[in-house]
Amino acid sequence: MSLGIVSPQSMHFSAPLPLQSGASIADYTLVYETYGALNADHSNAVLVCHALNASHHVAGVYAGPGGTGTVGWWDNMVGPGKPLDTDRFFVIGVNNLGSCFGSTGPMHVNPATGKPYGVAFPVVTVEDWVQAQARLADALGIRQFAAVMGGSLGGMQAMAWSMLYPERIRHCVIIAATPKLSAQNIAFNDVARQAILTDPDYHGGDYYAHGVVPKSGLRVARMVGHITYLSDDDMAEKFGRALRNGDYQFGFGIDFEIESYLRYQGDKFSEYFDANTYLLITKALDYFDPARAFDGDLTKALAGTRSEFLLVSFSTDWRFAPARSHEIVQALVNNKRKVTYAEIDAPHGHDAFLLEDARYLKVVRSYYNNVWQEIERGRVADKARA
Amino acid sequence: MSLGIVSPQSMHFSAPLPLQSGASIADYTLVYETYGALNADHSNAVLVCHALNASHHVAGVYAGPGGTGTVGWWDNMVGPGKPLDTDRFFVIGVNNLGSCFGSTGPMHVNPATGKPYGVAFPVVTVEDWVQAQARLADALGIRQFAAVMGGSLGGMQAMAWSMLYPERIRHCVIIAATPKLSAQNIAFNDVARQAILTDPDYHGGDYYAHGVVPKSGLRVARMVGHITYLSDDDMAEKFGRALRNGDYQFGFGIDFEIESYLRYQGDKFSEYFDANTYLLITKALDYFDPARAFDGDLTKALAGTRSEFLLVSFSTDWRFAPARSHEIVQALVNNKRKVTYAEIDAPHGHDAFLLEDARYLKVVRSYYNNVWQEIERGRVADKARA
Repeated sequence: MSLGIVSPQSMHFSAPLPLQSGASIADYTLVYETYGALNADHSNAVLVCHALNASHHVAGVYAGPGGTGTVGWWDNMVGPGKPLDTDRFFVIGVNNLGSCFGSTGPMHVNPATGKPYGVAFPVVTVEDWVQAQARLADALGIRQFAAVMGGSLGGMQAMAWSMLYPERIRHCVIIAATPKLSAQNIAFNDVARQAILTDPDYHGGDYYAHGVVPKSGLRVARMVGHITYLSDDDMAEKFGRALRNGDYQFGFGIDFEIESYLRYQGDKFSEYFDANTYLLITKALDYFDPARAFDGDLTKALAGTRSEFLLVSFSTDWRFAPARSHEIVQALVNNKRKVTYAEIDAPHGHDAFLLEDARYLKVVRSYYNNVWQEIERGRVADKARA
Repeated sequence: MSLGIVSPQSMHFSAPLPLQSGASIADYTLVYETYGALNADHSNAVLVCHALNASHHVAGVYAGPGGTGTVGWWDNMVGPGKPLDTDRFFVIGVNNLGSCFGSTGPMHVNPATGKPYGVAFPVVTVEDWVQAQARLADALGIRQFAAVMGGSLGGMQAMAWSMLYPERIRHCVIIAATPKLSAQNIAFNDVARQAILTDPDYHGGDYYAHGVVPKSGLRVARMVGHITYLSDDDMAEKFGRALRNGDYQFGFGIDFEIESYLRYQGDKFSEYFDANTYLLITKALDYFDPARAFDGDLTKALAGTRSEFLLVSFSTDWRFAPARSHEIVQALVNNKRKVTYAEIDAPHGHDAFLLEDARYLKVVRSYYNNVWQEIERGRVADKARA
C-alpha cells in the first residue's frame, strides 16, 4: 500500500553550519518529509538519505490534478506494509544542502550579495550533509535513529553517520555503495562536469541572471551518467540494436532506440535539474573517502562505529560493483561489527537499488523486522532516551 | 628497428563511388602510405586498416625538425623485423573516406556546391571503406592481399574484406573487434555525437565557414571515448585517487590526476580532429553489423569467406570484450574456417591493441611467419597471379 498524499515541510536554521572546506553556510533551510509516527520513546526513527538526483520525496504522492502527483523515488521500499514499514517506523526524508528541490542551494539568494549563490555556493561533502541532517534530527527530537539508510550516494551518507555519530545510529543500511569512487567513477563525473562547465549557457554558474540554463551540458551529463546506472546486459536486453524506424537513416538523427531513450532521459533531466547542483553533488561523490584520514585504512576508519550494518550490492552493478561493498564488509568484520550482507543477482546494474526485486526487498524487509523486534522488546528504549 | 622517415602519397579517383546509403561520392582522393617492396608476383601485400582517430600513417616517422616527426600509430607492430615485417611484406596504410587526415572528407570542397561538404558529406560505412580500399588495391596492382589487418574499427574492415572480397584476401587479422556494437557501445557513441551536435560552435556542421570548431563538444566526446578505451583496473593503477595538488580544492577545477589526464586528452584531440569526421566514423561503427542481412545469423554472414583468420582479444577490454571475439570465432568454426585465436591477459583494456605486450606481439609475429612461409613456398603464387 502506498502512503497516499504526502506534503513536504521545511525548517530554517539560523546558526551557521561550518563545512569541511573551511567555509560555512550562514543560514539555511532544509526541506523534508516524514511518514508514520514517532513513538513515545523516540526509538523508531529512520532517516532515508537520497542519491544524486533524488530528494526528500522518498515515498507517497504529491497532491496534484486528480490526486496523482509524482510518486516518491523509493515508494516500493517505504510505506505501510512495505519493507521499511511506516506503520512501525517514523521515516524522514531530507533534501540535502546544495540540491535543487527546496533546501538551500546554488539557485537561492546568497544573503551576503542579495543574488543567487551560483558557483559561490560552497562545495559540500557527504559529511557536511550528515551534520545538517543531525541538526534536523535534533530539532525533531530524535537523539538516536533506529536506522540510517540509503542507496548509492545515500549509502555513503548512512556510512558517514555510523562514523560521525556512532551513538546516534543503531543500524546502518548501505545499499549499492562504495567506500570511495574509483578513477573511472571520477572520470565519468568529470566528463559530466566538463559538459556543463563548457556549455556557453553556463555563464560561469551565473546562468540564473541570464535567464537560461546550460541545457546541452546537463543533457550530455545525464546521458553519460545514465549509461553507468544500467548494466550492459540490461541495455542489450531492453534495447539491443533495435532501430527506431526500421532501417538505418544515414544521418545524425535517431537510428537506434537506445539513442532515443538516452536523449529523452537527458532532455527530461535538463528541464528539472539545476546545473550547479549537479556539479556540487558529483564533487561530494568524488570527495567521499572516509579512509583518507587513516592512510587509506578503511578498517581504522570504521573502528569507531557502534551500529549494526546491512549491506546490499547487485551483481551487474559496474558503477559500484559488489567488490566495493565487500571492502566495507571486510573492514566492518575486521572491527568485529555485526554485519548482514546480501549480494543480489539482479540484471539491472546500479539502478537495481531503486527497482522491484523480490529477493532484494525481502532482505531489507527481514532486516527491518529485526530492527522492529528490538524496539518492541524495549531493549533499546533506555539507550534512545538517554 | 623503425622504418625511419616515410612520406604519404595520394591517389585521385574520378569514377563515382556508390555507397551503401544509396548516395555516392563524385570523385575523391585517398591518402596512403606504403612500406617495404611489392614482390614480383604481388603476393606479399598487407593492408592495415585504421580505427576511429588514426590514419594511413601506420609506421615510421614524418620528416620534421631534427627528423623526429610524428611516429606512426602502429610503429611497434609494423617495420623492419617487427611482427608485420616490412622486410618481407609490402604494407599499405590508407586514410579512410570521411576521415580528416588527407583523404576526401567533410572539410573538403563539395564539387556540387563549391563549399566544404560539412554534414552534406555522405554517411559512409565500413563496407564503403572496403570498396574504396579495393579500388586503391586495383590501382596498385594488388589482386589479392596476403592479409588484411586491423584493430577495433580496423578489425571490422578486415572482417568486411573477408566477406566482400573472399578471393582477394588470404588471411584476415581481426584484433580487439566485435561483430557489431552493443547498445552500450552505441550509447557512448551517441553521447559523444550529442556533445558535438549541441555545441553552438558546431553551426549545423558548417563551422568551417564560421572560422570556429566545436571544441567543447569534441573535447567531451574524446573524454568519454577515452574512458572506454582504458580498463577500470588500469585507470586505478595509473591514477587511482591521486590528487593534483595534495588536497581537495573544493571547487570545479582539477582535483584528481585522472581529471587532468582526461581533460588534456580532450584538449589535444579537439585541436587536431574534425568534428564532422567524428560523427561519421562513430556512425560507421554503429552501423557495422554484417549478420543483419542474414537475420542476425553471423555464421551465415561468414559462410562466403575463404581466408584464414587470426583473432586476438584482450582480457580487460570492456569496450569490445573477449566474448565478442568469441562470437566471430564460433561463427568461423561453424563454417569450418581455419582460425587462430588468442586471448591476451593484458591490463590495458581496449587500448591494449596499440601497446607493447610481448605475448600479443609474439602471436602476431608467429602468424605472419606462417603467412610468409606460404609465400616463400610459392604455394600461393598462382592464386595471386590468377
